[in-house]
Amino acid sequence: MSMECKKGAPVGVFDSGVGGLTVVREIIRQLPDENIVYFGDTARVPYGSKSQKTVIRFSEQIIRFLKTKQVKAIVIACNTASALALDAVRDEFDVPILGVVVPGARAAVKATRNQKIGVVGTDATVRSGMYTKIIRELNPRIQVLEKACPLFVPLVEEGFKEHAVTQEIIEYYLESLRATDIDAMILGCTHYPLLRSRIRAYMGEDIQIVNPAYETALDLKTLLEEREMSSDGREASGSRYEFYVSDTAEKFRQFANTVMPFHVPETNVVNIESY
Amino acid sequence: MSMECKKGAPVGVFDSGVGGLTVVREIIRQLPDENIVYFGDTARVPYGSKSQKTVIRFSEQIIRFLKTKQVKAIVIACNTASALALDAVRDEFDVPILGVVVPGARAAVKATRNQKIGVVGTDATVRSGMYTKIIRELNPRIQVLEKACPLFVPLVEEGFKEHAVTQEIIEYYLESLRATDIDAMILGCTHYPLLRSRIRAYMGEDIQIVNPAYETALDLKTLLEEREMSSDGREASGSRYEFYVSDTAEKFRQFANTVMPFHVPETNVVNIESY
Repeated sequence: MSMECKKGAPVGVFDSGVGGLTVVREIIRQLPDENIVYFGDTARVPYGSKSQKTVIRFSEQIIRFLKTKQVKAIVIACNTASALALDAVRDEFDVPILGVVVPGARAAVKATRNQKIGVVGTDATVRSGMYTKIIRELNPRIQVLEKACPLFVPLVEEGFKEHAVTQEIIEYYLESLRATDIDAMILGCTHYPLLRSRIRAYMGEDIQIVNPAYETALDLKTLLEEREMSSDGREASGSRYEFYVSDTAEKFRQFANTVMPFHVPETNVVNIESY
Repeated sequence: MSMECKKGAPVGVFDSGVGGLTVVREIIRQLPDENIVYFGDTARVPYGSKSQKTVIRFSEQIIRFLKTKQVKAIVIACNTASALALDAVRDEFDVPILGVVVPGARAAVKATRNQKIGVVGTDATVRSGMYTKIIRELNPRIQVLEKACPLFVPLVEEGFKEHAVTQEIIEYYLESLRATDIDAMILGCTHYPLLRSRIRAYMGEDIQIVNPAYETALDLKTLLEEREMSSDGREASGSRYEFYVSDTAEKFRQFANTVMPFHVPETNVVNIESY
């Protein structure tokens, strides 16, 4: 593909399901001229309780699918896939791939004043220790406390955001973190920003809550500029944003329409296992 | 396969994950001479929030895998797969296949005195209306009330069985059912028997709680006897029980060892998407 062609090519974004749409929203805000192809693996969601081997295999299939859409770059919007699969797939494919863990870690390192950072995420993300590893590479003196909160995803997905039990489960998971003096906390799962105000209320105003989506969109912008692949908005043809899923799209479309700043008219179902 | 060979052949049992082991346990109790090959789709669990098309595709792959083990019959231990996929796969494969919905419905029809039955299950099972359909075929005068309880599975899987929030979520989901005069209730998901005592305490002693596993093992026994395929226990060679999963086996093995009446020494990982 020539440089000229690449400018108009879409950015691929993928996630285990719907959560990655919060990252897409941030990319649209910061890079309004870019075309986006999104894939949500709704047939195999969630990734957060699965093994590294499986998450790598799923990620490889999705990247092969996105490459059929001639994407010029790929953003892994899922924290679990970023933590478990980014290193493996980056070596394997000839398209630039970004995750959310490095941008999230960098933002937290900037945010902390006392060098104590908390991280909340899925079981698999926390078990990988990837946030701790990246933060320590940026600043070895920083202390990192990670905590898995596996019930946050089903609570959000089942519409319990406002329910009293969600408050109790937030307290159950975050009590030990609140008892420390961390002054920055990474929401290391794309669903967690949907609980942000309740987490903030419980953790207190003194703690900076870091959502990696903002910094990830910034990183994408830098990458596209460095490689002279940024869209100039001239080549957009047809739909700017395309949405694909691996299981029927209705629930996805409903969620997409609550997150996206525009109407999502349709989504397409892909047999991802064949890639 | 000759009749003689079939007697010694194993029974295949599958589930979206670990829950189906409660059905295996019941089969072992009632049919101690049978060999069993179990498959848990831990890479793609849960099924309860996915579409019929996807659940049928997953079930087809698993049945193709189980057929490579020369199974003489297959039990779909998963309520969601039984409700969404049994009719489709039964027509497609030349091995007898049983689900848990018909046995569970029959047990509830026997149990009710006032012809009012409640059913709790996953989103997909309840949306399918399959329990209502089967119960009405058995007795059209019976009134059926179904209620999806999607948080029960993650609560059990994340070890919240004894936690206070589980009580609140039980009350949240079951309040409307308790306000009716149903006198029998089907636990239409293999995870729910693990909450049985709390559900019973909330619903009251007057309601009969039906776990389809018992009746399913009875149906399997009848099927094997009718077809003269029951094992006489003479041909067992090597391990009587084999366990396969689609994602790494450690968590599965831990759970298996809490449910099974014997030690589960190993499980094998299968790339189920290739079937």
